[in-house]
Amino acid sequence: MVTVGAAAFPAARPEAAPRRVTILGATGSIGTNTLSVIAERAGSFAVEAVTANTNAERLARAARTAGARLAVVADPAAYGDLKAALAGTGIAAAAGDDAVREAAERPADLVVGAIVGAAGLLPTYAAIRAGRQVAIANKECLVSAGRIFMRAAAERGVTIRPMDSEHNAIYQALGGRPIDEVEQIIITASGGPFRTWSRERMAAATPADALKHPNWSMGRKITIDSATLMNKGLEVIEAHHLFGAPTEKLDALVHPQSVVHGMVVFNDGAVMAGMGLPDMRVPIAHCLCWPETGPLAGRRLDLAELGSLTFERPDRARFPALNLARQALDTGDWATNILNAANEVAVAAFLGGRIGFLEIAGLVEQTIDRVSAQSVPAVPDSVEAAIALDREGREIASELVRMHRTR
Amino acid sequence: MVTVGAAAFPAARPEAAPRRVTILGATGSIGTNTLSVIAERAGSFAVEAVTANTNAERLARAARTAGARLAVVADPAAYGDLKAALAGTGIAAAAGDDAVREAAERPADLVVGAIVGAAGLLPTYAAIRAGRQVAIANKECLVSAGRIFMRAAAERGVTIRPMDSEHNAIYQALGGRPIDEVEQIIITASGGPFRTWSRERMAAATPADALKHPNWSMGRKITIDSATLMNKGLEVIEAHHLFGAPTEKLDALVHPQSVVHGMVVFNDGAVMAGMGLPDMRVPIAHCLCWPETGPLAGRRLDLAELGSLTFERPDRARFPALNLARQALDTGDWATNILNAANEVAVAAFLGGRIGFLEIAGLVEQTIDRVSAQSVPAVPDSVEAAIALDREGREIASELVRMHRTR
Repeated sequence: MVTVGAAAFPAARPEAAPRRVTILGATGSIGTNTLSVIAERAGSFAVEAVTANTNAERLARAARTAGARLAVVADPAAYGDLKAALAGTGIAAAAGDDAVREAAERPADLVVGAIVGAAGLLPTYAAIRAGRQVAIANKECLVSAGRIFMRAAAERGVTIRPMDSEHNAIYQALGGRPIDEVEQIIITASGGPFRTWSRERMAAATPADALKHPNWSMGRKITIDSATLMNKGLEVIEAHHLFGAPTEKLDALVHPQSVVHGMVVFNDGAVMAGMGLPDMRVPIAHCLCWPETGPLAGRRLDLAELGSLTFERPDRARFPALNLARQALDTGDWATNILNAANEVAVAAFLGGRIGFLEIAGLVEQTIDRVSAQSVPAVPDSVEAAIALDREGREIASELVRMHRTR
Repeated sequence: MVTVGAAAFPAARPEAAPRRVTILGATGSIGTNTLSVIAERAGSFAVEAVTANTNAERLARAARTAGARLAVVADPAAYGDLKAALAGTGIAAAAGDDAVREAAERPADLVVGAIVGAAGLLPTYAAIRAGRQVAIANKECLVSAGRIFMRAAAERGVTIRPMDSEHNAIYQALGGRPIDEVEQIIITASGGPFRTWSRERMAAATPADALKHPNWSMGRKITIDSATLMNKGLEVIEAHHLFGAPTEKLDALVHPQSVVHGMVVFNDGAVMAGMGLPDMRVPIAHCLCWPETGPLAGRRLDLAELGSLTFERPDRARFPALNLARQALDTGDWATNILNAANEVAVAAFLGGRIGFLEIAGLVEQTIDRVSAQSVPAVPDSVEAAIALDREGREIASELVRMHRTR
């Protein structure tokens, strides 16, 4: 029972041994920020292993700074560089996909799954199967294979802590209350750079236009997803898996200031909103310290200074990606998998100048239709099957891009 | 450990026996709304006892509708009427202060302390001493004798559930996290009818002007407290006791839409905000159902329809009551007790046309100064001592009002 009042609050826990943290994808944006939060809280955390895709030099630097025990690079060709860069440090070096998976399985108090893209699936899954608590910043784990991940987590008693600001805010707003007590989970969207653009103007949008995100500084792929609102579509799918929420309890709301990250409407009408300045270090710190909340320096939200927060319903006609994602969620696990695969291909094609902005959603829809027409797709029941389906989706989408160009 | 994901969420609890609820102050605004929520959730609750101050007829009607076992009227002169009105219903009737206290002590799963004013102190305290879980809607319990109430609650393992919307929102936003993890607790204020008035214009404000509250429909006393912002000052004092928060962690923020009721800034920069339409049934339902959240029909907050939420810092020069309350909190328990007593007298004097609007805060300050000058006041260490101090404060304040008139 939770009790209120000075005397009833639990005291700070006694000085504990540092938590051992492994970071999968340590050189990317989330990985770098995770290491920065850990550096700020020296004494509370110790780094077990760090992994990266190809950048041996940057990985070695991160491993040395963090005092990691092991550094693993996925690309075997980078092994020599990594070994050389770590010479004399006492930090072990390894390379290859199997070594990344083994790093994920090593004993640790928390494994941060921050590998970008489909490459994150197998190592993050391996961590869960090994019974490690995980914090997930990788979208694909839940969008491409959410059911498989949640089932494994339940079997192994693993808590999946969401590391992106929207799901982390919702996680905190839920406060452990069961989904039966929830009427609505609302994910906010900045609305992206085209929030006020007409469909005609959007049709002529260039990659440079779409890459001007109003609030967050992020990678190119996710910034385009913010412009199409596919980002929110994918987040709705993630929320479905993370919180066990049916489609009808999930919604997106445009909120240009990106201060409210997510909200939960309970079945008595009370609403809990998770807010904060747009700073990914905040949800990262929450995941690292959970179930405690640890101190983190940084600017604080000042609502009086901000003055006002605004909200509007997303325009589902101008931003069809939102409905596409919801339909895929209702269609089944194969459809959300294909949605994500096709979207990656479509965004790359847009960035490469091969299709127009409005054709991104169209290409995703066509890919799902094509897969559906070819066969009744099986629900992927393993991570390997999910990866195979993802590849199939990418191939079909790529073919559709080629057809589009030769039209 | 709280886990996330469909499989990990606890299932709804099995059909339990109805919770027995006693309502102290059943005919007032909170009491009536509590009974209305209970009526909506028939089967989940059973009413043990209801009490009222003098209105036997209304109390008897409430007792009959709710199927209470006992109805108690504080005024012994009303006993005959109550007895007659309950004849043949099987509902027991009683009268007098001792009978109200005994009603509070009867076995029940929850006692709702909704008696208005100082009369609420002894019965609510008796419920806690008897080990009953309590929901408090009475301000005086915490402002006049907060330390005594919290100490008794801690000794008896009683959870005090806050029933007003601000503290209930903060309670939910805290989600049981310890106060060490909290950087700031923010109580919102509508700003009242004089939010945009100059000090000169406020000096000439009439009771009719001050009674025009923009969002909430409340009693006259509390509506004037909203106009002076003393309401928020008193709420800061309540929050100090309820959440064990030192003065420097407590703040008020003007938010004219009254949609965000309270916020907690955690020490990692994450902010949880408790929101909802202004409807006291929502926090009442939360207190009744806690630690579950039970379904409650009603309009829901629609942020897209609302469009925007605005925030501004309170003007402490035009609304000196806020600083007065903070100073009293720092001065000690006697000072918050006198602050509240003097404010009641001052508000009554303003409503009676005996002092001007701006003189309310001045009179409160003078009363505290006077008490301080007369003697070094003792910290009240019993509810009786707190009540005696409250009486002293009222007498001195009344004398100051008389002196003011003959000036």
